[in-house]
Amino acid sequence: MKIYVHLWLEPDNLSYLKSVLSEHKVWYRNDIDSDQREAACKQADVVFGNVPASWLKDQNNVRWFQLDSVGFDAYLTIDWKAKNMQLTNLRGMYGVPVAETALAGILAFYRKIDQLVAFKEKKYWGYQKIRAEVRCLHRASVLILGGGSIGLTLKKLLSSFDCHITIYGRDPKKSDIFDIENLEKKLAESDIVIGCLPNTALTTNLLNAQRLRLLTPSSLLVNVGRGSLIDEEALAELLHDKKIGGAVLEVTQLEPLPDNHPLWDCPNLILTQHAGGGSANENRQKMDIFLDNLKRFKQGNPLKNTINLSKGY
Amino acid sequence: MKIYVHLWLEPDNLSYLKSVLSEHKVWYRNDIDSDQREAACKQADVVFGNVPASWLKDQNNVRWFQLDSVGFDAYLTIDWKAKNMQLTNLRGMYGVPVAETALAGILAFYRKIDQLVAFKEKKYWGYQKIRAEVRCLHRASVLILGGGSIGLTLKKLLSSFDCHITIYGRDPKKSDIFDIENLEKKLAESDIVIGCLPNTALTTNLLNAQRLRLLTPSSLLVNVGRGSLIDEEALAELLHDKKIGGAVLEVTQLEPLPDNHPLWDCPNLILTQHAGGGSANENRQKMDIFLDNLKRFKQGNPLKNTINLSKGY
Repeated sequence: MKIYVHLWLEPDNLSYLKSVLSEHKVWYRNDIDSDQREAACKQADVVFGNVPASWLKDQNNVRWFQLDSVGFDAYLTIDWKAKNMQLTNLRGMYGVPVAETALAGILAFYRKIDQLVAFKEKKYWGYQKIRAEVRCLHRASVLILGGGSIGLTLKKLLSSFDCHITIYGRDPKKSDIFDIENLEKKLAESDIVIGCLPNTALTTNLLNAQRLRLLTPSSLLVNVGRGSLIDEEALAELLHDKKIGGAVLEVTQLEPLPDNHPLWDCPNLILTQHAGGGSANENRQKMDIFLDNLKRFKQGNPLKNTINLSKGY
Repeated sequence: MKIYVHLWLEPDNLSYLKSVLSEHKVWYRNDIDSDQREAACKQADVVFGNVPASWLKDQNNVRWFQLDSVGFDAYLTIDWKAKNMQLTNLRGMYGVPVAETALAGILAFYRKIDQLVAFKEKKYWGYQKIRAEVRCLHRASVLILGGGSIGLTLKKLLSSFDCHITIYGRDPKKSDIFDIENLEKKLAESDIVIGCLPNTALTTNLLNAQRLRLLTPSSLLVNVGRGSLIDEEALAELLHDKKIGGAVLEVTQLEPLPDNHPLWDCPNLILTQHAGGGSANENRQKMDIFLDNLKRFKQGNPLKNTINLSKGY
């Protein structure tokens, strides 16, 4: 089998993958000149890693494309059915790290770690200014938008804080509420609202200006799904006016955030800059998912994490 | 019964306490001039709130002193037996908030919230610098020193991250290891070490320079118990030399930390400045513990949270 590996690998990960794939013809992006990569990709049966979409649109031999991300917006213009090419992503891999970043942001906000970090920078002992304002997550009411791997991991973690958890989603087996009316009710009632939804027609601008205004000066809004969920201009205004308590944003509509973007200046906002998926062994995890799927592909078994283009995830 | 309330109360808490204690003769620090407080204290049967120790050393009528703290170092020179005065503290009240601050610090360190906060201050999109360094708490090995309310709350919270938890303490029913040899072994092996011990002869300088050197460049040291646990000079040196990964200190030997203290300049250190016990309704919780004990005191029943002076907590 011919494989093109577009994922850029650290030396130890590269040698590990080479030893595991030694029986195949493999081109590694690490090893070949940039002008030879497109040709390698087009000759391969299998591609691992997010190549430019045009390489897959043109004539090629690829039968399975394993993304090294969860999102696949860049590839929506490809007619996958006509190409007879299988498409898989890394769904599930980011459940734990992203849920941990969401919780890190929530606890930082509740326990004022952001302000304490700024105090240390100034060598300022300011605890008396914040001690009466620090809040406990214990028994907070939390609305989680999305019952995927991030949402379910968060549910598990927050349960140990005895939080009251409501999951909003489409799947009745994994969700507590399903309709907009109940969503709006819970937006107004919850201490914390966490977005962990994929980017689909149904989720785009779900938290529009009108719904964001249902939040209160003690609400904390968290988004670790996709930036398209939130009307950012409305959010920036509500943060500036202290109409909502605070926000933790892992994702934004534009990344990197432009220099003049209104979110940079917002008070009570923690920007985690899409670093939440990271972990010291991230590429090793990506390779493990690819290698597991490669075994299935060779045996003709169904692949894991295939993308359902009609649902959009 | 005569009661002196030395705890300074917010207006709503003051009126709440007045309504509950209306049947008693009560002096409130809020209501009387500063030169009359000592006399009020000495006349009272019951004192609530940390008065100067000298007021209790002199001749007085106090039969029960309810501290509004957990620590009671300021009162060690009083001969409580001779005075026939009961002494109670707020043990247990800080389990949840302090454990949450410890976890907030750990997650901030693992998910790089401290660096992300600094990035926002500079409007700098620096996620690529940290994404490969963020770590997951999931399945980390954690050594908790002390099996009191903070340690046990942390055990519950960390269990939801599937951490491997070892508790070091004196009580075999609540602890996994008891002796110094096992303690030193675990110090070298654990990803995270969390101190939640009271200040006693046995815990003072337990983490001396020699034991701190057992930690590794990937270890995180957390202290939310008492500052006396740690040799701070040795810790500062190890942090500067990157011999240990990082530290989260809720408590220090001197508070406020003096301007020229070496800890101010240490990298990879989060100082939570003893704000961890705080919560928006802290005084209400203190009053609830006092009122519960007052009921017991009136009925002649044993008080909760009495201090065992021979054990030191």
